[in-house]
Amino acid sequence: VLHLRNIKLTVEYHGGNYCGFQIQEKAGLPTIQGVLEGKLSLLAKEKIRIIGAGRTDSGVHAKGQVVNFFSKWKIPIDRVVVALNSVLPKDIVVIKAEEVPEEFHARFSPKAKSYRYQIYNSNVPSAFQADFAWFVPYSLDFAKMQQGAAFFLGTHDFASFKSSGSAVKNNVREIHSLELVQDGPLITINIKGNGFLYNMVRIITGTLVEVGKGRISPSDVKTILEAKDREKSGPTAPPQGLFLIKVGY
Amino acid sequence: VLHLRNIKLTVEYHGGNYCGFQIQEKAGLPTIQGVLEGKLSLLAKEKIRIIGAGRTDSGVHAKGQVVNFFSKWKIPIDRVVVALNSVLPKDIVVIKAEEVPEEFHARFSPKAKSYRYQIYNSNVPSAFQADFAWFVPYSLDFAKMQQGAAFFLGTHDFASFKSSGSAVKNNVREIHSLELVQDGPLITINIKGNGFLYNMVRIITGTLVEVGKGRISPSDVKTILEAKDREKSGPTAPPQGLFLIKVGY
Repeated sequence: VLHLRNIKLTVEYHGGNYCGFQIQEKAGLPTIQGVLEGKLSLLAKEKIRIIGAGRTDSGVHAKGQVVNFFSKWKIPIDRVVVALNSVLPKDIVVIKAEEVPEEFHARFSPKAKSYRYQIYNSNVPSAFQADFAWFVPYSLDFAKMQQGAAFFLGTHDFASFKSSGSAVKNNVREIHSLELVQDGPLITINIKGNGFLYNMVRIITGTLVEVGKGRISPSDVKTILEAKDREKSGPTAPPQGLFLIKVGY
Repeated sequence: VLHLRNIKLTVEYHGGNYCGFQIQEKAGLPTIQGVLEGKLSLLAKEKIRIIGAGRTDSGVHAKGQVVNFFSKWKIPIDRVVVALNSVLPKDIVVIKAEEVPEEFHARFSPKAKSYRYQIYNSNVPSAFQADFAWFVPYSLDFAKMQQGAAFFLGTHDFASFKSSGSAVKNNVREIHSLELVQDGPLITINIKGNGFLYNMVRIITGTLVEVGKGRISPSDVKTILEAKDREKSGPTAPPQGLFLIKVGY
């Protein structure tokens, strides 16, 4: 029986130049998975398939995406980071490589995920934040956004905060923490939970911006959660403000 | 006699997608000046030529580039920012527009300029800093870099810190302040002076990195200044770490 190593990579990427994480059947569309598998296969001299913790959408970034793959590749584990970064494009960086037990599975093993969403709240946009934040040129009541955010904490059915097109049936998730930070024009939402539905962080953000604008009250967040109806929540915030920060196992 | 308005714009841009500030004779190369003149001419319905304070190189960014132009354009001055930003690409943003006296000249009137240079000093590169910092994967002695930097303060002949290809004859410039800040892997050099020679900030940075590596001692900076010889100073740091922060009039 051939022994295959199970290798876990922690990956940082700028999602702006890619059509999302997941490899596309249509040829020619650049994806994070496609680039990683291509470079890994080149270095390991065998066809490598990776498993990713989160299928980030086009334009979404990662500070700590996790992937794993099985391989016969004989490289010492402490050389994997340098070997990969020497061939990867500058917008995809492997920050850590570890050998893990056979049963480790990037997608099914996570106990928690952390995301960050950045809003650039100013009259004038920023040339530097254009790829990394949602430009919102309206006055936002930050205190009300914080009040609204508190209703998301704990265990809820998040059906109102899920985009259609997801095959997932169980919409119950637990939010461990949700923190809002204001630093000049930049509003950062840090959210951690045991799992997230499709577009959940972006719809939570879109809803909190509606609260900030005064279009809905903070306590409406509770009503929207209870409605279990996507029609009741706010718009889906654009992808470029979203970062997958950490996947905990 | 036709009265022309003199309009001053403060402009922020991500230089990564442009072949520098100055318009190129060779058609098809995107430049900051080319894009600004194109959009201004479109809105003002006349051919507009702009004068820029600093001709930043390809890949160099600006937080506070200043340009001015003469025009018959009748737009109220408080609408210029919104009008321009609605047609400009997202990596070029006009942050301020002012009507200024006829004698104001963006290039010849400046009393001071401020630049910032960012170094990303880590074993592993950053996908997010790739366009905004020089990745230096060697150990740097920050205290020694600060000691070396002190020698640049005041009035000196900066011939050792000028790239060839400049027609400027007088190499004497005054550095008002030079501050180094370390924040995790990011080392930021903030430098202000009455003017800068071609590539001067990038050669100062390259020389300070040599000091940080221990290849030259802090006091060698004084010797290199006195030599007035480009061969004696360090390499030219790459463009993407450089930001034109402010032009003072």
